[in-house]
Amino acid sequence: MRRHNRTVLIRRLHIGGPCTRASLAAELGLNRSTIKALVDGLAEAGVVEERVPRQRSGAGRPSLLVLPQAHAAVVLAVDVRVEQVAIALVGLGGEILGRNSWNLRVRTREPAEVITHVVDSAIVLAADLGVRMVAAGISVPGVVRRSDGLVHEAPNLHWTDVPLGERLGAVFDVPIRVGNDAELGALAEHLRGTARGSSDAVYVTADVGVGGGVISDGSALRGTAGYLGELGHMVINPGGRSCYCGSRGCWETEVGERSLCRALGLREGAPRGAVVAELRALADHPDLVRSRLGEFTEWLTIGLVNVVNVLGPELVVLGDLFTALPGSLIADVAAAVRDRSLVSRASGGTRIVASTLGADVTLLGAAELAFEPVLDSV
Amino acid sequence: MRRHNRTVLIRRLHIGGPCTRASLAAELGLNRSTIKALVDGLAEAGVVEERVPRQRSGAGRPSLLVLPQAHAAVVLAVDVRVEQVAIALVGLGGEILGRNSWNLRVRTREPAEVITHVVDSAIVLAADLGVRMVAAGISVPGVVRRSDGLVHEAPNLHWTDVPLGERLGAVFDVPIRVGNDAELGALAEHLRGTARGSSDAVYVTADVGVGGGVISDGSALRGTAGYLGELGHMVINPGGRSCYCGSRGCWETEVGERSLCRALGLREGAPRGAVVAELRALADHPDLVRSRLGEFTEWLTIGLVNVVNVLGPELVVLGDLFTALPGSLIADVAAAVRDRSLVSRASGGTRIVASTLGADVTLLGAAELAFEPVLDSV
Repeated sequence: MRRHNRTVLIRRLHIGGPCTRASLAAELGLNRSTIKALVDGLAEAGVVEERVPRQRSGAGRPSLLVLPQAHAAVVLAVDVRVEQVAIALVGLGGEILGRNSWNLRVRTREPAEVITHVVDSAIVLAADLGVRMVAAGISVPGVVRRSDGLVHEAPNLHWTDVPLGERLGAVFDVPIRVGNDAELGALAEHLRGTARGSSDAVYVTADVGVGGGVISDGSALRGTAGYLGELGHMVINPGGRSCYCGSRGCWETEVGERSLCRALGLREGAPRGAVVAELRALADHPDLVRSRLGEFTEWLTIGLVNVVNVLGPELVVLGDLFTALPGSLIADVAAAVRDRSLVSRASGGTRIVASTLGADVTLLGAAELAFEPVLDSV
Repeated sequence: MRRHNRTVLIRRLHIGGPCTRASLAAELGLNRSTIKALVDGLAEAGVVEERVPRQRSGAGRPSLLVLPQAHAAVVLAVDVRVEQVAIALVGLGGEILGRNSWNLRVRTREPAEVITHVVDSAIVLAADLGVRMVAAGISVPGVVRRSDGLVHEAPNLHWTDVPLGERLGAVFDVPIRVGNDAELGALAEHLRGTARGSSDAVYVTADVGVGGGVISDGSALRGTAGYLGELGHMVINPGGRSCYCGSRGCWETEVGERSLCRALGLREGAPRGAVVAELRALADHPDLVRSRLGEFTEWLTIGLVNVVNVLGPELVVLGDLFTALPGSLIADVAAAVRDRSLVSRASGGTRIVASTLGADVTLLGAAELAFEPVLDSV
């Protein structure tokens, strides 16, 4: 029981941040003496620190503020993307203590190269920061088997059946977890972003590929054997372009980065910076957005109608490249989805918003994946 | 604890059927004396009966067979369809004790008419059988708010905002639950059908409309406020026919009963019997099936690719009108989905099969919805 309460308390501080003893007691439904005993134990173990809060409320002795200590548990988070790898060491409470990233070119996208580079960078970063990591979480843009971290297929990286979890586990003697990028984006949004407090939310991410992560009734959907959420491979335009997945006219082929480049008159594979700059230039011109991105807007709408009708979220968070879309386009899409989705109308209107966690969303999700198995042994 | 074990035991007998004391002990992880005490209590209350099994295994005293007693708890199950209403009184263990059904014509589809007829029939049926019902579950082909049984929209019935749960609750002083037909089909398949033992399954049903119910990680997906699974309103053919839902080319407009009638050269709205007869006539002619239903097969495939990519089930069960499709068509669809779905390939091939629960699947699901809140107080 005490062990259980201790884990609940650590999880609360890790996700919710600093909190007074009094508020912790109220939130967790524990009495003050139980909280005191737990916090004293955690302080002694160096997991939390206590401080007199700066702003005192009311008269009497102020309730002490309990702060999680980042160095009490540090995990490695890795975000493998098609064109870049980022790693970070993330402390208890979610603070990024240090980070490193490098671009991938076709040659350096080989799994063995990527793994070696991740290992070397992580060792150097941990030594620089003087920390020891207790777990690692890795995000990959592909279909991943959660049980052992096998990357079954990461098409845009050209990876097939890469035993990523096993390889990293052989080097680092800590729990290693591998997840799909969109799934981890959803986890980060649910724990630390716009979808916090929302029990039914979908996170849709666009890079070269398009993917989705689903929170249903407060938990991540997994699918059989952990395979789920290839939202980018819903067929929405059966007469459209061939997709590597075996279908034609997938959502990804209509609204992924390459399609957006075409719509903007850029060459496919233009640098991300150029795409974003072009979108920014349009931001203040809703009419131009409608004329140049009208078709793109329609495909984004159709895919989101499907997502809302099938999964029934109250909130859809658009991430990564989609966060650069003009606000007027997102507003148009949100209005059209409300008009054209039975489920949105029934549930009072699904909210559709851009992510506010920025470029770190997947990295933060990978960190939370890593924290999951270790929070109860901090 | 004892209360909890009692409920677990009743649920096991209700779903799994008769079982020896010894097997119950092994399955539930309880020792024999605990099982004996529980079973004795249930027998005394008339919830179970014990019998010496006919086939004795091995030497020694045989373990007594424990049988649930249907009359110990009887619920009303109602299946409101577009053209017909069926009601049944269903006993503990899932046996249908008696039933009644009637056709709906446009005039008699008014909510007030339907409710009156359901109430009158249920009262007569219960009196005939000499039973008292302890709960009711109602299936509706539409979008339902689970908390109070409001039918938000049942388009093919032309119902909008019908307080069905409240109306029936005012007549019958028992717990009333209302659910979506596809969701209840999924529940029945999961508890008593092909999807038994499968933790990730999707049930897709076709009548005039097309809908789906989703079992994920062993539980029914609900969506925000209970709205979910309007699989029939995935847009898969944006250049297709207008749908009442506000979109064009929904899966329902391509593979619903009307579309199947067109493909078969029948008039839209032909009687179900004629559609089924036409399908049966084709059953032994795979070549004819391919030439006449090729386009229908393609739309069914595309929708199922989407369902598999988004939801990641290990099994898709096709219900209602789809159970009349020729076996060769279902085999073709299953093979095409495997070829064209990333998720199916990754997870080793999603199984796609026709339901074997027959026409009662929704009624059985409605009964299980009714049993949920009462099994612990039997």
